[in-house]
Amino acid sequence: MMHINEEEERTRDSWPTCNVKCGIDQMAKMRAALFVERGRIVLDEKPIPDIGPLDALIRITTTTICGTDVHILKGEYPVAKGLTIGHEPVGIIEKLGSGVSGFKEGQRVIAGAITPSGTSNACLCGCGSQDGAGTRHGWKAMGGWKFGNTIDGSQAEFLCVPDAVANLAPVPDGLTDEQVLMCPDIMSTGFSGAESGSVRIGDIVAIFAQGPIGLCATAGAKLMGATKIIVVDGVPERLEVARKLGADHTINFNKFDAVDEILRLTDGRGVDVAIEALGTQLTFESGLRVLRPGGTLSSLGVYSTDLRIPLGAFSAGLGDNKIVTSLCPGGKERMRRLMSVIEGDRVDLTPLVTHRFKLDEIEKAYDLFSHQRDGVLKVAITP
Amino acid sequence: MMHINEEEERTRDSWPTCNVKCGIDQMAKMRAALFVERGRIVLDEKPIPDIGPLDALIRITTTTICGTDVHILKGEYPVAKGLTIGHEPVGIIEKLGSGVSGFKEGQRVIAGAITPSGTSNACLCGCGSQDGAGTRHGWKAMGGWKFGNTIDGSQAEFLCVPDAVANLAPVPDGLTDEQVLMCPDIMSTGFSGAESGSVRIGDIVAIFAQGPIGLCATAGAKLMGATKIIVVDGVPERLEVARKLGADHTINFNKFDAVDEILRLTDGRGVDVAIEALGTQLTFESGLRVLRPGGTLSSLGVYSTDLRIPLGAFSAGLGDNKIVTSLCPGGKERMRRLMSVIEGDRVDLTPLVTHRFKLDEIEKAYDLFSHQRDGVLKVAITP
Amino acid sequence: MMHINEEEERTRDSWPTCNVKCGIDQMAKMRAALFVERGRIVLDEKPIPDIGPLDALIRITTTTICGTDVHILKGEYPVAKGLTIGHEPVGIIEKLGSGVSGFKEGQRVIAGAITPSGTSNACLCGCGSQDGAGTRHGWKAMGGWKFGNTIDGSQAEFLCVPDAVANLAPVPDGLTDEQVLMCPDIMSTGFSGAESGSVRIGDIVAIFAQGPIGLCATAGAKLMGATKIIVVDGVPERLEVARKLGADHTINFNKFDAVDEILRLTDGRGVDVAIEALGTQLTFESGLRVLRPGGTLSSLGVYSTDLRIPLGAFSAGLGDNKIVTSLCPGGKERMRRLMSVIEGDRVDLTPLVTHRFKLDEIEKAYDLFSHQRDGVLKVAITP
Amino acid sequence: MMHINEEEERTRDSWPTCNVKCGIDQMAKMRAALFVERGRIVLDEKPIPDIGPLDALIRITTTTICGTDVHILKGEYPVAKGLTIGHEPVGIIEKLGSGVSGFKEGQRVIAGAITPSGTSNACLCGCGSQDGAGTRHGWKAMGGWKFGNTIDGSQAEFLCVPDAVANLAPVPDGLTDEQVLMCPDIMSTGFSGAESGSVRIGDIVAIFAQGPIGLCATAGAKLMGATKIIVVDGVPERLEVARKLGADHTINFNKFDAVDEILRLTDGRGVDVAIEALGTQLTFESGLRVLRPGGTLSSLGVYSTDLRIPLGAFSAGLGDNKIVTSLCPGGKERMRRLMSVIEGDRVDLTPLVTHRFKLDEIEKAYDLFSHQRDGVLKVAITP
Repeated sequence: MMHINEEEERTRDSWPTCNVKCGIDQMAKMRAALFVERGRIVLDEKPIPDIGPLDALIRITTTTICGTDVHILKGEYPVAKGLTIGHEPVGIIEKLGSGVSGFKEGQRVIAGAITPSGTSNACLCGCGSQDGAGTRHGWKAMGGWKFGNTIDGSQAEFLCVPDAVANLAPVPDGLTDEQVLMCPDIMSTGFSGAESGSVRIGDIVAIFAQGPIGLCATAGAKLMGATKIIVVDGVPERLEVARKLGADHTINFNKFDAVDEILRLTDGRGVDVAIEALGTQLTFESGLRVLRPGGTLSSLGVYSTDLRIPLGAFSAGLGDNKIVTSLCPGGKERMRRLMSVIEGDRVDLTPLVTHRFKLDEIEKAYDLFSHQRDGVLKVAITP
Repeated sequence: MMHINEEEERTRDSWPTCNVKCGIDQMAKMRAALFVERGRIVLDEKPIPDIGPLDALIRITTTTICGTDVHILKGEYPVAKGLTIGHEPVGIIEKLGSGVSGFKEGQRVIAGAITPSGTSNACLCGCGSQDGAGTRHGWKAMGGWKFGNTIDGSQAEFLCVPDAVANLAPVPDGLTDEQVLMCPDIMSTGFSGAESGSVRIGDIVAIFAQGPIGLCATAGAKLMGATKIIVVDGVPERLEVARKLGADHTINFNKFDAVDEILRLTDGRGVDVAIEALGTQLTFESGLRVLRPGGTLSSLGVYSTDLRIPLGAFSAGLGDNKIVTSLCPGGKERMRRLMSVIEGDRVDLTPLVTHRFKLDEIEKAYDLFSHQRDGVLKVAITP
Repeated sequence: MMHINEEEERTRDSWPTCNVKCGIDQMAKMRAALFVERGRIVLDEKPIPDIGPLDALIRITTTTICGTDVHILKGEYPVAKGLTIGHEPVGIIEKLGSGVSGFKEGQRVIAGAITPSGTSNACLCGCGSQDGAGTRHGWKAMGGWKFGNTIDGSQAEFLCVPDAVANLAPVPDGLTDEQVLMCPDIMSTGFSGAESGSVRIGDIVAIFAQGPIGLCATAGAKLMGATKIIVVDGVPERLEVARKLGADHTINFNKFDAVDEILRLTDGRGVDVAIEALGTQLTFESGLRVLRPGGTLSSLGVYSTDLRIPLGAFSAGLGDNKIVTSLCPGGKERMRRLMSVIEGDRVDLTPLVTHRFKLDEIEKAYDLFSHQRDGVLKVAITP
Repeated sequence: MMHINEEEERTRDSWPTCNVKCGIDQMAKMRAALFVERGRIVLDEKPIPDIGPLDALIRITTTTICGTDVHILKGEYPVAKGLTIGHEPVGIIEKLGSGVSGFKEGQRVIAGAITPSGTSNACLCGCGSQDGAGTRHGWKAMGGWKFGNTIDGSQAEFLCVPDAVANLAPVPDGLTDEQVLMCPDIMSTGFSGAESGSVRIGDIVAIFAQGPIGLCATAGAKLMGATKIIVVDGVPERLEVARKLGADHTINFNKFDAVDEILRLTDGRGVDVAIEALGTQLTFESGLRVLRPGGTLSSLGVYSTDLRIPLGAFSAGLGDNKIVTSLCPGGKERMRRLMSVIEGDRVDLTPLVTHRFKLDEIEKAYDLFSHQRDGVLKVAITP
């Protein structure tokens, strides 16, 4: 994902920080996972963030590591040196900016990985993930993604949440940190795969890749009424979890040709919606190849190369097909809705949390997670 | 567009014919433009079609040649030898099948290039262009396109219209043949570019290529409320017509880099909707490059090669962008609506008819049209 | 529902019959439940229907009685004397019209209560329930409802299905008659309440009345991702079934004020979508009163009086609210989708079948059902 | 519209004011049109507003009077005594709050009548007109309407704009104050009638009442592609303006029965979309009566009584009809889009400004406007 947004890159060295003094001891330090250089994310000390009038300071109680963080670790996605990584916070409001109302200190909250300002042209169009607050036109590609990208992130003891009124979402009583830990990114992104694909009652849906996001796409497709859900992965354990979350058929691509198998399972018809949840040419292309005429490919993956659309799989442009992409929807209303899914017992995502670490052990957690060892899906990190 | 649908190809030699005897002299012959072999479409005699109980026989009064017909001529799109070419009919009902009600002989009608049966699963989902009547699942890529593709077409003295109840659209009194000649394909396809792109009031829209379909896309974008319409072509005369149909800015790609110019005209923001109306990598890719985050590329062209999606222009899959494709919507209700646009003086497409030929001269018309000589946009052919 | 459609009423005495001789013994008689006069539906003999070229003759294996049939019985909805009642068929194809392909005799099928032709303007707009085939403009209010309304219905040994290609839906192997018996009407209508209300993941939905249609609306809301489903009825047994189908909260209106209780359960916020499933002023008005600003009332009931919209509940027209109505969607693709819900184990509607009768006992079944005795929800009738 | 929102009413006496000192002379007074009591809006002096960190102070250059202001004048809609009236501002940025970026003092701007915060749950759902910033659930009926309702309005020399980043919309060079004067309310509301009705290319649309909002609905319907637009009013001059803005047929209800005439003009079919632009039982009911099955009634008016839905006009709830209501969409992106309509020469609304007054003469303007004398449509008020 390098060179996507040159303007953004130019400003990486001077990312904005919260600039108003926070009430807690301003000299106090905290521990945080910092990007140092390609291949190195280390736990280090840095000052507890100051917050501005529209911000909130959150004391992190649980956070996690995302595949995107691994891209950052590997130097595949550039961020400023010294930036705190992470974009999936669960915590307690420590301090509210002077302009923040409707919340109170001590409240347990989450914030989405994407933190729309609510006030840009993009936000006012319902497209907060592309929030261009402060830009000339109000749109910025991926502009809503700030935590661990353009401002300090959540793998730390404290986190400054920008535009707090739009982004703090109180956690319902009775839900544990781990129960809502997937809401900020994994669940929001995965579900958006089904939503952007406009899954309808009775749809046949295929989902390519069953990592955490793909698994949530599976759950989302089921939640929207798909009646035949076919998932593809190469890891048997992931396919097992997929079954729990709603998959009717699982295909291990090490044993079967996924496209052939899906066409066989649909008796040659193809699927109404294919969801791509990895970010490779193969999964993208396979998604196109299994679509029925008029079907939709909903793409969630972060690609790292140009993509090729095969002429035949695209019906030469005449198949009434759609390709839609989504970046994790954020904002407090989105978080509220996702937590209501958990609270209403519609989906249980706790099987995704396979490992637990203290913040002190985060380097070990990165090592495990980045090498996908020991059947890891997601790790819970607790400061 | 070769090899798109192998099943279809296998059956090309035995395309369906209307099989019930029509009331007019069954031995009578008519003139028709037949595909003979790569490079040869000739005017020849063949029997006037028999019609089945659900069909109608139309006496063609005006028809035209489409870019797709030129693909057939060049052997780039395979059809059965001896097939009558053409899919844009205006004519008079000569005979109705025994099961056709709601129309009367002598009535002036058009039928869409696409003739959905209305009764397949695809049709019942509102996707008649992918009509799979008679197939196992009810979907068939491009299955709604029958005239001059899988059954005899309109470049003839008579035409058999299948599923006539769903496809015959009476021409309002007061409209000439030439006024409605664009409805069956060019206007329906071009407008669908704006419709599938979900153009809204206040949108900025760029349209790549201003052949007949691109020009209709321009008219469609204006009709849906786009307030800044930027069009790209290399032919000054086409850019002139584009201005009449709604373009606010015209870019001659021989003089300017279209992408740069569109970004300049939008002050760096990009467009809400880009419409591709040619079918090349360059126009497809340029459409992606000028989109704002969250914008939609609406693709109309018939491609002949695989397509490449540049990583950056696609925001690595994170830009909330959409790529949508459309095949010319058909059916009588679509035709009725399009004719109401003409009747209501919303759009005047007669400037698109630049040349007129008798059916006897159709080979000359193909020669002119296929070489794009003499500023030709569309030709009117009258038997 | 009297006097709704005067044109229709005028033609009630001469409703269309299938007019081509069927292959089975043409003199053979069958038993059928006929409307005789207000208050009398009787089992009698009448000829087995002849079928036309586009029709299919179905040997009924299971059918049921609908609340609408009770309206007919009571004379509240006028139909022609001697008409066979019923619009929910499960059966075996006995005979196909000469123009019907894609099916074979002996196949087990259902057809929707609504049988769109597929070829009218309404159908071509995706609005087959208002099918106006044969009318001047192609639209007719409720025109898609033919069985037991404008043509002979399903409470008989045989049924003629019009426009069979568009309407016959093969039953998947492994599903029993009773498993699919709700698809033709109850499930299609109930689900459309959630669909027309555009229920989204995380919505709070209230459903007023939990008769068979309301129960299916409950199941549909759950299937589309509603995370808090509140249902209202006065019969404890129905509230019990509602819980099984997805209700999170049940309100017995004999014990609580439903509006107050819903506002309490939503902490004063109101619901995103209210579904009305009875057809009275009280349920309609209550639906409006519990909507949040911007919420949608999805109405399914058949009303018998003018309705009143209270000014305050409507925010004087300034609340960005919607009121949407739906008539049971039909057609084979709809039926296929609904049966896939059953086949995919998403919903089990067999608890709705509380009583079983032979066709010979149908008068007894009407008596039980019309008086809502013995906890009846739906009856299964087998010839 | 009394008693709509009791919670709101209880707080009318203590509406919020901007509470941070503005840079200009804090003792300076300005002239403003204040609601004094039922029947009395007077020009008086009050302090120039202080602004908070998220606000902007605008020096009004042009404003106007709305029908809603007349409701306030007549005591039909309750506001706090002493409140400055008006919600349609054009002006120059005098001062920006400390937290407002992206704008500069001296810039010419408008703000919508509705000023969403951008950060409430309602706003984050794209429903800013029902903005519930600060409320428990984030929704409040009509909560986005603040100017001249819950905070001081625009009929004054200066105006404090809340949530300025979301609401200030720079006026393009070359557009006069009067050219953009309709954008904040009349045009936004009128257009939303067509937008919420989902007008499509080829639709037949009827608009009931051709006051300023109805006239804009006419222009909006044309801009979205309606091909037969039929308007109803009793004032010949308004019908004349309607023709200029897009009406194809005008009906003077003093001479014709509007419902009969619309059915005649549509040959008995009815309209796809009816837009109600007055707020009475008659216009609401007439809108329902002229709908085709499946059609939509888009309601814009502010009602003052309960409404009645006639059973027949509603097809007893079985007509697949929709009733949708809209409150003027606001926010800077909406304003930008509307101004682009003017800038792109799509619509010329200056004929709506029939009279001009100095702010000093505003009482005279109210007198003229509230009595609809002298062919008045809208007045321009310049301080």
